[in-house]
Amino acid sequence: MQLTRNEALDYVRPALKKSRYEHTIRVTDEAVTLAERFGADVKKAELAAALHDYAKYKPLDEMKRWIEQERRLPKDLLDYHHELWHGPVGAYMLEKEIGIEDSEIISAIACHTTGKKHMSVLDKVVFLADYIEPGRDFPGVEEVRDKSLTSLDQACLLALKNTAVFLINKERTVYPDTFHAYNDLI
Amino acid sequence: MQLTRNEALDYVRPALKKSRYEHTIRVTDEAVTLAERFGADVKKAELAAALHDYAKYKPLDEMKRWIEQERRLPKDLLDYHHELWHGPVGAYMLEKEIGIEDSEIISAIACHTTGKKHMSVLDKVVFLADYIEPGRDFPGVEEVRDKSLTSLDQACLLALKNTAVFLINKERTVYPDTFHAYNDLI
Repeated sequence: MQLTRNEALDYVRPALKKSRYEHTIRVTDEAVTLAERFGADVKKAELAAALHDYAKYKPLDEMKRWIEQERRLPKDLLDYHHELWHGPVGAYMLEKEIGIEDSEIISAIACHTTGKKHMSVLDKVVFLADYIEPGRDFPGVEEVRDKSLTSLDQACLLALKNTAVFLINKERTVYPDTFHAYNDLI
Repeated sequence: MQLTRNEALDYVRPALKKSRYEHTIRVTDEAVTLAERFGADVKKAELAAALHDYAKYKPLDEMKRWIEQERRLPKDLLDYHHELWHGPVGAYMLEKEIGIEDSEIISAIACHTTGKKHMSVLDKVVFLADYIEPGRDFPGVEEVRDKSLTSLDQACLLALKNTAVFLINKERTVYPDTFHAYNDLI
């Protein structure tokens, strides 16, 4: 099923808090900008970004069941912070509920929080758009925005470095896909 | 084959530079101290430490062939810095050359540089001894030494954190076993 931007946004809106919906709109705009800049499919970037946080507020026990029961969802997610679940779970819920079949869109939604090994240009665009959308305000984001003007890879690498070092300094676990994405970009 | 400390040191001595041999003696002493402190097998700790750097100066092409040909050596080592090869390669060379059969000793030698998931007490003792032996002098080592007086896990965790952040800040790859060890200790 091919959705328009507005159909996609209308689909996720009831599942999100107002502030999260506004974030979603900013990520969508940013993803379009980055897709145009770095040669990703603009339509796919727009849709993936509009849909990326669909599962953000799904009940944890529901997401847990999805991870346990859906063959394609990595079981090791359950060993890591539940904040990481909504990307992969959201991707598979959307596939099931509204028949999103485009594997590139599914992938970009699934890995938008953690990154992964061998990210496509579309994966990177959505990951980065989520990190730098204009509402984000945390240490280091401005430097990533600067990089995003010229290099998608350098901007993603810096975002992954910031994330890994932030988590390590807080003594929180780092999902392996984040390290794989980092190693891959190095 | 069960070696004495001196037999083990005599075996590795010709394979090492003088400074590396002296490091080996300090690691061996430190490993004995840590093993006594944290309840590892002191004899195994002493042997693993005495042997841990055996392959440090083996030619890179020889180590590469070992990794390619030895079923049990992880192939992904070849995608990472060759500095990481001597632990796993040394462990398997020693197994073959002098019949070290104790899987705990082999494991501690193999993972002494990177750490790994589910490290045993012996693995941690050798890993930590290598990191904090009195000849080491790099930022953060004193804090790890302090931790090593009271907690093997906390000291290893701090060493792994330092290593990961150091590598990330240098934009160098982080071998997956290192972040698995980190996540495991968190």
